[in-house]
Amino acid sequence: MAKQRQTGVKPTREEDYAEWYQQIIKVSDMAERSPVRGCMVIKPWGFALWENITRILDGMFKDTGVKNAYFPLFIPLSFLEKEAEHVEGFAKECAVVTHHRLEQGAEGGLVPAGKLNEPLVVRPTSETIIGDSFSKWISSYRDLPILINQWANVVRWEMRTRVFLRTSEFLWQEGHTAHATKKDAVDRTVQMLDVYAKFVEENLAIPVYKGRKSAAERFPGALDTLCIEAMMQDKKALQVGTSHFLGQNFAKSSGIKFQNEREVEEFAWTTSWGVSTRLIGGLIMTHSDDDGVILPPKIASSHVVLLPIFRKGEDRDRVMAYTNEVAAALREKVYHGVKLVVEVDDRDIGGARGWEWIKKGIPLRVEIGPRDIESNSVFVARRDQSVKEKASIKKIKFIGEITKVLDDIQDNLFAKALDFRDKNTIEIDETEEFYKFFTAENQEKPEIHGGFSISSWCGRDECEAKIKDDLAVTIRCIPFGDEIQEGKCICCGQESRKKVVFAKSY
Amino acid sequence: MAKQRQTGVKPTREEDYAEWYQQIIKVSDMAERSPVRGCMVIKPWGFALWENITRILDGMFKDTGVKNAYFPLFIPLSFLEKEAEHVEGFAKECAVVTHHRLEQGAEGGLVPAGKLNEPLVVRPTSETIIGDSFSKWISSYRDLPILINQWANVVRWEMRTRVFLRTSEFLWQEGHTAHATKKDAVDRTVQMLDVYAKFVEENLAIPVYKGRKSAAERFPGALDTLCIEAMMQDKKALQVGTSHFLGQNFAKSSGIKFQNEREVEEFAWTTSWGVSTRLIGGLIMTHSDDDGVILPPKIASSHVVLLPIFRKGEDRDRVMAYTNEVAAALREKVYHGVKLVVEVDDRDIGGARGWEWIKKGIPLRVEIGPRDIESNSVFVARRDQSVKEKASIKKIKFIGEITKVLDDIQDNLFAKALDFRDKNTIEIDETEEFYKFFTAENQEKPEIHGGFSISSWCGRDECEAKIKDDLAVTIRCIPFGDEIQEGKCICCGQESRKKVVFAKSY
Repeated sequence: MAKQRQTGVKPTREEDYAEWYQQIIKVSDMAERSPVRGCMVIKPWGFALWENITRILDGMFKDTGVKNAYFPLFIPLSFLEKEAEHVEGFAKECAVVTHHRLEQGAEGGLVPAGKLNEPLVVRPTSETIIGDSFSKWISSYRDLPILINQWANVVRWEMRTRVFLRTSEFLWQEGHTAHATKKDAVDRTVQMLDVYAKFVEENLAIPVYKGRKSAAERFPGALDTLCIEAMMQDKKALQVGTSHFLGQNFAKSSGIKFQNEREVEEFAWTTSWGVSTRLIGGLIMTHSDDDGVILPPKIASSHVVLLPIFRKGEDRDRVMAYTNEVAAALREKVYHGVKLVVEVDDRDIGGARGWEWIKKGIPLRVEIGPRDIESNSVFVARRDQSVKEKASIKKIKFIGEITKVLDDIQDNLFAKALDFRDKNTIEIDETEEFYKFFTAENQEKPEIHGGFSISSWCGRDECEAKIKDDLAVTIRCIPFGDEIQEGKCICCGQESRKKVVFAKSY
Repeated sequence: MAKQRQTGVKPTREEDYAEWYQQIIKVSDMAERSPVRGCMVIKPWGFALWENITRILDGMFKDTGVKNAYFPLFIPLSFLEKEAEHVEGFAKECAVVTHHRLEQGAEGGLVPAGKLNEPLVVRPTSETIIGDSFSKWISSYRDLPILINQWANVVRWEMRTRVFLRTSEFLWQEGHTAHATKKDAVDRTVQMLDVYAKFVEENLAIPVYKGRKSAAERFPGALDTLCIEAMMQDKKALQVGTSHFLGQNFAKSSGIKFQNEREVEEFAWTTSWGVSTRLIGGLIMTHSDDDGVILPPKIASSHVVLLPIFRKGEDRDRVMAYTNEVAAALREKVYHGVKLVVEVDDRDIGGARGWEWIKKGIPLRVEIGPRDIESNSVFVARRDQSVKEKASIKKIKFIGEITKVLDDIQDNLFAKALDFRDKNTIEIDETEEFYKFFTAENQEKPEIHGGFSISSWCGRDECEAKIKDDLAVTIRCIPFGDEIQEGKCICCGQESRKKVVFAKSY
């Protein structure tokens, strides 16, 4: 047996993907499970990603005319009940506030007291409470459109949780808009999906499929749910963003009415759209390897770490002076609108130091020792290349070209992820082949096993349900486009006019 | 009777200050009460203030080495109970989650189901849950200090609420730090109070007194609470920021221990510090007048509004072209690190248009009509001056000097607020005079009635309590400084060595 290289993370992806994910969150110091069931603590290295995500997305939203606001955390039960499908969708997993104080119980400890007349639900999403505000803000077509976003925490009492991917509490943004016409609302639904796709591909370096959900997978209360779907390294799909056309459903249940130009009262047309801290999970699962996380530079918590090296005490001052000079020069560089974030790590902890930064996924590691100073150089390693690959580069060249190098890493990561996805996406027309593709036992073609299958679907719920029951495979999205794709349903064999993306998913 | 000028807000401050405040929130379109008891909806014009506050403060925190993170919304009851004074302080006003789903009740509607084994409290503050994380993160003196901040929503079930000033849910930041020595923790407590004071004075243009709270007014569980206190236009005090030295109380209750350099285990020393959306209430109550809000330019939601004026249709294109040209030039200007936010309001709604912007408090209003174009000018009104005061200024001069003008408005607002506070702050040594000063019936010197009184206090709880009972006046802060100020306690007449700030407060 060939001796395996020691990896930064144990187990490897191949050995145990799910456990690898847990370990990678841990060794990168991004987040941890909290003592509160299903909730997470996002640590500074992980939260910096969220800060970068919010900064960039917030700017993109505002460029389309959206303004931020803030609505209450609590939703009266009666509000949630206004839209029947909606409450049905969230009733099974919501945190309910029933009391407003604590008092000494008979057995000594504190117990809930001050029972509320009406229970309050901690928002799982805010259509109903924001709809109530919209109903007050809107009276004329002149008040439309209203384009609102809020950055907030939401709670869905999930039974099986996984840090960043599915947690009881998570952070997200939820956009809510109201329009005078159906067309305006539909256009906005598409526009925001496009914003998400652009953001995710250009900043997180995650390629996505855009499309719409089947009726069974729609947001509770929506007429149409658009989504972007990405492929993780275990070939499962992750839904990373959704944009909902809500028709007049919530306008009717919340009373969002306006007088049109002919002074006739109409219900408004509304949309909602959101992405969450799940993006961070997707980012990690797309790019990381068996040595740790790999962060795309545009979104990285920090861009570069300088690692001064000195064996002898007398070298210290000289090396630190050179290091600080490099750091100061780098901190003046602007990369996609922000100054480079530069770490200087002068801890005396040996080889563990470099490995910590590999695990954290920082794009560039720069070693600086006495010999580098003599040659006016720095010794550079890129996180998107092998751990051992390092190059001596003239200091002036490194500083001058660092933003180009970061862009190159960004592009590389996207290209690699795209290549992986495309290699694992195939068109399957035969039912038997489809079942083999998604069955663990099929080891004939391991290299193309279990990714995305583009296959015909007749459009019937029964076929969708049977495939889900048989294989735990769902329709991830129905790609956009009016063209008819003749074929036979992969489940029932009946005439089909559309091919859709099937996959297992998170 | 002289005819009174019509004001933008009714009632005026003098007629009914509390109702004036409600009205001013409404007419400025900043926020509204929500259907959820005690919670508010922050509308875009109000939320933009919070975005500016968070942007500037966040940068100031990071400059001192603080990093952001995120901790769970829910706190297990057992965590809150760990620190006796702490839970005592918050038990009477907390939202308690007792169930995790809803199901069909016997009478038809949904009812809470899935009772939790342990109730969860919606965080009123996060010392206990963050302390739990710190206990895991810290093992050696090398791990210290830890400097963490989170931007979050918190809930305190207040019985009497007022938008921005006191609401059941509010937005805030809470900093939490752990240190190896008492001195480090005390220094950090002072440092963050200084950050707050600098931020509030320089950006919100609100002058503040810095000092420490008396024992009775301390944060539950703290050894020392430092605060900044501002004077509102009704001469009442508003506490706008606090910084707490927690000693080893929370370290002991949460088990935050570390090995010191001599390998001896010690408890860490912790601090916490916060400001909230209350700052917006303070901002409004400090600067606004009977015509509406007045926003300090450094924090304003928008800096300038352009109001094109055209009576005849044929003027429209010409006026709009000129207006858009001015807008484009202004939007390139950078004011304290951000590009100017420029509104163009071309609605055809007559005089109501200008008044809307006056009420909203935008620093500069610029009218542009055909005559202004002919003279290459704009017609400018400053919100810190009388509503009728407007000046024709050459366009090129206006654009060139706008940031100076904004700074001048900023300085004016601070100077005016400082003057008001200082005029209404007096040293009182006589008990009778003190009682008269704070008694509504005393109309002898209305111009100096009921502001801040700097008076001697012996340091005893009884005297503090008596004054609170008699007058609803509290010790707002004990100013910093070691110097002894000999005097006689304003309450009991006994020897006193310190003068403190007394006032009524929000």
